Amino acid sequence: MSSAPTSIHELMTDIGRRARAASRDMARAETARKDRALLTLAAILRAQRQALQQANGLDVEAARQAGQPPAFIDRLLLGDKVLEQMAASCEQVAALPDPIGEMSELRSRPSGITVGRMRVPLGVFGMIFESRPNVTIEAASLAIKSGNAVILRGGSEAIHSNRALAACVQQALQQAALPADAVQLVPVTERAAVGELITMPRYVDVIIPRGGKGLIERISAEARVPVIKHLDGNCHVYVDSPVDLDMAVAVTDNAKTQRYSPCNAAESLLVAADSAAAFLPRIGEVFAAKGVEMRCCAQSLALLRQLPAAAALLREAREEDWITEYLAPIISIKVVADLEEAIAHINRYGSQHTDTILTTDHRHAMRFLREVDSAAVMVNASTRFSDGFEFGLGAEIGISTDKFHARGPVGLEGLTSRKWVVLGDGQLRH
Amino acid sequence: MSSAPTSIHELMTDIGRRARAASRDMARAETARKDRALLTLAAILRAQRQALQQANGLDVEAARQAGQPPAFIDRLLLGDKVLEQMAASCEQVAALPDPIGEMSELRSRPSGITVGRMRVPLGVFGMIFESRPNVTIEAASLAIKSGNAVILRGGSEAIHSNRALAACVQQALQQAALPADAVQLVPVTERAAVGELITMPRYVDVIIPRGGKGLIERISAEARVPVIKHLDGNCHVYVDSPVDLDMAVAVTDNAKTQRYSPCNAAESLLVAADSAAAFLPRIGEVFAAKGVEMRCCAQSLALLRQLPAAAALLREAREEDWITEYLAPIISIKVVADLEEAIAHINRYGSQHTDTILTTDHRHAMRFLREVDSAAVMVNASTRFSDGFEFGLGAEIGISTDKFHARGPVGLEGLTSRKWVVLGDGQLRH
Repeated sequence: MSSAPTSIHELMTDIGRRARAASRDMARAETARKDRALLTLAAILRAQRQALQQANGLDVEAARQAGQPPAFIDRLLLGDKVLEQMAASCEQVAALPDPIGEMSELRSRPSGITVGRMRVPLGVFGMIFESRPNVTIEAASLAIKSGNAVILRGGSEAIHSNRALAACVQQALQQAALPADAVQLVPVTERAAVGELITMPRYVDVIIPRGGKGLIERISAEARVPVIKHLDGNCHVYVDSPVDLDMAVAVTDNAKTQRYSPCNAAESLLVAADSAAAFLPRIGEVFAAKGVEMRCCAQSLALLRQLPAAAALLREAREEDWITEYLAPIISIKVVADLEEAIAHINRYGSQHTDTILTTDHRHAMRFLREVDSAAVMVNASTRFSDGFEFGLGAEIGISTDKFHARGPVGLEGLTSRKWVVLGDGQLRH
Repeated sequence: MSSAPTSIHELMTDIGRRARAASRDMARAETARKDRALLTLAAILRAQRQALQQANGLDVEAARQAGQPPAFIDRLLLGDKVLEQMAASCEQVAALPDPIGEMSELRSRPSGITVGRMRVPLGVFGMIFESRPNVTIEAASLAIKSGNAVILRGGSEAIHSNRALAACVQQALQQAALPADAVQLVPVTERAAVGELITMPRYVDVIIPRGGKGLIERISAEARVPVIKHLDGNCHVYVDSPVDLDMAVAVTDNAKTQRYSPCNAAESLLVAADSAAAFLPRIGEVFAAKGVEMRCCAQSLALLRQLPAAAALLREAREEDWITEYLAPIISIKVVADLEEAIAHINRYGSQHTDTILTTDHRHAMRFLREVDSAAVMVNASTRFSDGFEFGLGAEIGISTDKFHARGPVGLEGLTSRKWVVLGDGQLRH
């Protein structure tokens, strides 16, 4: 499997073994104790602000010397506001209900036994992420609340920040009489450590990568444990017929332009033929005013060409435009015959992330909800709502574009499994 | 990935493409249509009994000529009773509630949107199995009801039977105006076909292997899609202190001896030190009468040696006995200090399948339920209850010893996922 030097292999095996042992204690920790660790962590983050910023300064300085762009530095920087948000988020996670131990669906069976499910932690998860050091605290707080252990592997560009943050977490765990090994940071930056982390099914139950598509594809291809993965967000807005045009313009605009870089921003606009002549010039005007480039099918191009303001922003769409996640002020536009063609197009070219229909027809809405095979399907709402906080999860460890286990925004529940419980009174099987 | 000859690669790609296309139709098929296909299938199986038995005869004859043992022939044989059970099971699956389209947890959010979950099919699953041709019908009926497509890959020893059964399924699908490609049997027996099947993430969403541990480990190691896998069932009975001795004897006996070969039969008996002197001689007598070999720790050996009837059946346990699934009239026996040691032993040596505590102490029962990290944990009930029908799933496609996605007995629900649905009225994100 791995050709890592023995020392990295031994290091990772040791980390894995400690994590597994700690996960047993975490699984049975009372809610009050876990919450105490989270509130203590918030207090430590505030108290240690200067020391954390000093450690962060080493990473920022190194990034500057390496000539990293300002956006990179921005993501790295632990300013006062970012640190306060991190502390506050620990308090928010403490306030969430504890998912562990929840029993449900208890039913009596003809044999006399009572059968139900109990929610329990997954065990140990590995978190692999780049640049943003706040992921250290997000992952740690969700691990603590959900009774899991976590092994964190951040990018080398944030190693000093991550080390300082992980030390705060371990301090908080110890003050709450929980095992410090429940949250461990891989202390080395060698790439071989990742290779080990994703191939230790004995010690790691699931891997959650956060980063570019390349990183996630590489990890998925090599992992020997399940991966909760988020590939692209090629999200669609389908403007149906019949439709409320004012609403359709407002929602399409919001889905595309409220922010360009999130994965739940719209990348492709489909318009029912019967709505095209009325709708496209109106949205074209909005996009033109905001400088959004429009990559159009022949039909939509013909309609939008009548709009002088849009002229400079129109392009002919190529096949690859239908599968592209731009994350930029660009949108692909296609006129489709009807709902049927819209659904087929989305299931063929989409990325199974988030898609919305704008319609006034109830049957169309229901068919879209049922037949579009994506993690989140919406009626008359902006795709930008597809996120753990907007959905009410209280926290988000990632978004899954898979169907297996967790789908869509993943909160605490995605870090748990449900086992079967049987309550009997001496029943025998015959 | 695969070094299969182009023709097998092309064959499997074609099967995969058809399955994916059929899965779209299955996902939106009405309940009545799916149930009609299942009832039609039951009727066809009864009507075609002679033709099916003729095809089966070819397999049975080949197995006889190859010198296969009687147990093997037994599993292969499609007698009248087996065929009638297959037909009846299709009718039972038709009578189950349709899981698809179920909406739950709909909640209003402060933004004004309503967010909930909708249960949908996984898409396409691959079923890999050995000898028993009835798996063809089990898998097909569960695929149809759950709105999935399935690709079946049976063993070469049952190829004629499986082909004849799959033809019945396709006929039933067509009569119900559903796509015949929803249930396809891999028509060739080359091993390379399995290699292709488990490495087509574009066409196959999950693999369910049924067979020996070797087969399942090989598939899990090579698969590029999730595998719902069932490795061993090293199930424990823990006799606590305090305990109702009569009940403990009856349940331990049932868990071990009611049948020896199922994966939910007990393989290891742990006894609290305070119960050992009273309990072990009694269960030892039962086991001795049934010829069950006892592989004992030093303490239990000392107690059981006082039992003349057991003498010939006593062995000293070795370390490997604690991890062994015997599937035979053999049990390992260990005296443990207390509940704590019992839980630690099970979590260390068990296979995370099914474990039971026999106790009258409520706090012990609750700790066992919570802390034993297995797919099914029981109080005062026989491990033999761990099965989809006893749990009320109405059907069982397999048992998962994993924690990810499905855990324990897997019924229709394990073949589904839940997507997010959002109902809005033009809401925008701010």
